[in-house]
Amino acid sequence: MIDPVLARLDADRPQALDRLMEFLKIPSISTDPAYDGDVQRAAEWLANDLKSFGVPAEIHPTSGHPMVTGTLGDGGPHLLFYGHYDVQPVDPIDLWHRDPFDAALEDTAAGQVIRARGASDDKGQLMTFVEAARAWASVHGSLPCRITFFFEGEEESGSPSLLPYLDQNKGWMSEPDIALICDTSRIGEDRPAITTQLRGLLGEEITVHAASRDLHSGSFGGAAANPIRILTRILADLHGPDGRIQIPGFYDGVEETSSALRADWDALGITPEDVLGDVGLSHPAGETGRDVLEMLWARPTAEINGITGGYTGAGFKTVLPAQASAKVSFRLVGRQDPAKIREAFHSFVQERLPADCRVEFAPHGAGPASVMDTDHPVFAATRAALDAEWAEPAAFVGAGGSIPIAGYFKTILGLDSILLGFAREDDQIHSPNEKYDVKSFEKGTRSWARLLGELA
Amino acid sequence: MIDPVLARLDADRPQALDRLMEFLKIPSISTDPAYDGDVQRAAEWLANDLKSFGVPAEIHPTSGHPMVTGTLGDGGPHLLFYGHYDVQPVDPIDLWHRDPFDAALEDTAAGQVIRARGASDDKGQLMTFVEAARAWASVHGSLPCRITFFFEGEEESGSPSLLPYLDQNKGWMSEPDIALICDTSRIGEDRPAITTQLRGLLGEEITVHAASRDLHSGSFGGAAANPIRILTRILADLHGPDGRIQIPGFYDGVEETSSALRADWDALGITPEDVLGDVGLSHPAGETGRDVLEMLWARPTAEINGITGGYTGAGFKTVLPAQASAKVSFRLVGRQDPAKIREAFHSFVQERLPADCRVEFAPHGAGPASVMDTDHPVFAATRAALDAEWAEPAAFVGAGGSIPIAGYFKTILGLDSILLGFAREDDQIHSPNEKYDVKSFEKGTRSWARLLGELA
Repeated sequence: MIDPVLARLDADRPQALDRLMEFLKIPSISTDPAYDGDVQRAAEWLANDLKSFGVPAEIHPTSGHPMVTGTLGDGGPHLLFYGHYDVQPVDPIDLWHRDPFDAALEDTAAGQVIRARGASDDKGQLMTFVEAARAWASVHGSLPCRITFFFEGEEESGSPSLLPYLDQNKGWMSEPDIALICDTSRIGEDRPAITTQLRGLLGEEITVHAASRDLHSGSFGGAAANPIRILTRILADLHGPDGRIQIPGFYDGVEETSSALRADWDALGITPEDVLGDVGLSHPAGETGRDVLEMLWARPTAEINGITGGYTGAGFKTVLPAQASAKVSFRLVGRQDPAKIREAFHSFVQERLPADCRVEFAPHGAGPASVMDTDHPVFAATRAALDAEWAEPAAFVGAGGSIPIAGYFKTILGLDSILLGFAREDDQIHSPNEKYDVKSFEKGTRSWARLLGELA
Repeated sequence: MIDPVLARLDADRPQALDRLMEFLKIPSISTDPAYDGDVQRAAEWLANDLKSFGVPAEIHPTSGHPMVTGTLGDGGPHLLFYGHYDVQPVDPIDLWHRDPFDAALEDTAAGQVIRARGASDDKGQLMTFVEAARAWASVHGSLPCRITFFFEGEEESGSPSLLPYLDQNKGWMSEPDIALICDTSRIGEDRPAITTQLRGLLGEEITVHAASRDLHSGSFGGAAANPIRILTRILADLHGPDGRIQIPGFYDGVEETSSALRADWDALGITPEDVLGDVGLSHPAGETGRDVLEMLWARPTAEINGITGGYTGAGFKTVLPAQASAKVSFRLVGRQDPAKIREAFHSFVQERLPADCRVEFAPHGAGPASVMDTDHPVFAATRAALDAEWAEPAAFVGAGGSIPIAGYFKTILGLDSILLGFAREDDQIHSPNEKYDVKSFEKGTRSWARLLGELA
């Protein structure tokens, strides 16, 4: 059943690229109200495109930009496909070598690319799936399984309407068996990657207070508590000499990476130099005895993202400040519980406060890690589909950062996600001259078509 | 010989107060070029006043404001008397209840005061000595010992001309046996104080660099060195659990306070509450087993005066910054060598730098502690003079901060200083509504007259 679909995709490629470029010419910058009409226009374009091959697409208004949804097909696993039709702003515009919304094909030394804002993030990526579905519907008259399309228009501006929307629609939106999210990269020129675990994030600001006002260190130095000293002491205690985090209970829910997954990661051949070389570093700075990919994907962290206290201008001022503060974040893995860790961190800080001092905490978000159930049959199908399409076998990889949508699907809808995208690290998303390789688009559409074939 | 001098001071008091108020009416704000003419006028007023009782005063131009000098008298120890004729700015002017340069006597619940900018700091204080000398000259036709008067006009603006002046004039300026500096406070309403030791100060800024640019903690957290973490670790290592500073060799040159001096300090009855209560603290934060005055006056410190790194604005940003920096200062005592400590601190930091990181240092001044030779006969004479004048015996005290002039006299001229002033802690120097108690002025002039009597 798959061969005619692939043939159709190949034959239809010029038209598919034309459709994508039409879509890219709509400047759907979600963060700038000046483009509100364009964002709406992009939603309408997308809904109309879905309708053109039979998806009963609808545009759902929100208090921000609308959601575009539609469900088509029967049987097989029920898939929820997610993408976003909004794009980043284009500043600094001077650094673009062409109008970011006059999408065009360009020949480069590395092959043909589609050049435009949103070409990779995420219009090009989401259209790989739409084109695969269109080809199936066109060749076989129907989709091989039930598919719910779900597109938002606020991903680049913090998704303010997403949580309320998922909450209000969790009845029908929980019906799918699994979500597909197409907003990530492949890991090698000929090697696709499925992201199976993403770290969670817990943020906390702490402010240590001592004296009721700033003091002169000549008059008070040695006798008065210095909140910067107290803060640095507390922060230094966060890590032991082996790089492990010293907060009691912090590692509850952290499991060792399975040997199968480690073998997958080892096979990627990624060196510390690959990860750190571009930013002038060479020594992985995490726990002793862990390799660099483990540090990034499978191990939790405690990081100080900001610190301030006392006099920080030019020159010198012999002040003992009244307060000092730091922003601390924890990347979480496995089943670490953000609420318990927040509480344990508070106790950790409180226990280290000397007399005369007090601490204020300000929470800054908390989300657990996402670890996908790779035993789900759709994972096996995905891997098989990718193996058939690509020269190198698909890798199961981790991600050091959070992808909030995957967390929301899990916590609100109870859905695992398959994070499969075809972008390249050099696509310059969020930067001038964003592009998407025609190869990414071509093999992306074929990959999704093969996955649908596996599920048929 | 002293009685007629004291009688003359008492009889001449109204005229002495008039002279002081005339001096105070000259707005000699040294930091503001708009007042350059007034600063010059104050120098001239002071030189003329010295000449009026026989001192061959001269005004020495500098690249900034002039020095006023003059030497009179023979025999006995040769004294160098220092004061400054410039004053602080008056902002915020709205908080003054009268024109800061329309000096006047005011009756207050605590007694009569002279109200004006500079009344205490330092015109009122320096005139206590000038009046004492005038009374001696007038009653006995000469001074009882040789006195060199030395006044600067830039103390409130960082004394930029002082070091070059001392360097260029160190020949004749090294001739005196000891310096008298009248710019400090008495310690009780009826208890004068001589400051016999001042802590030195060493300032150093350190900047820890890691990656070549700011990183996202999702992409790099756990693998990339975080300079804030490294900096807090280094700073936390500065102090041991007993509050002692861990830099090797740091305590070289630090001696225990003599039992005589400790007895003096104990007799002051100063509690932690006296020192810390006003700023909302109650627990002395220095080395275990030291009392609060030792911590302030006799023990060295390492303080972090400022720290900054990463994102410090509102909200949160999961950044791993490229650098983080701190301003660190050390208060020094005894014979601690600032140059050696700077070097030891550099090594201390370098040894704690992990791979991939580098540190930059920026020096911010270095001055050793001043510990006066209290065996000098002028100290005994001063104590005797004060005991005769005041209801309570004079205390030998320390100062937690530096008084740069005392350090310069020691290092450039080789002179110890007797720091004796009569101000009160509530004089509001550098603040609106500065005042000097008439009692401070009266007993100050009498104290200096008695000291000259002791030296006669």
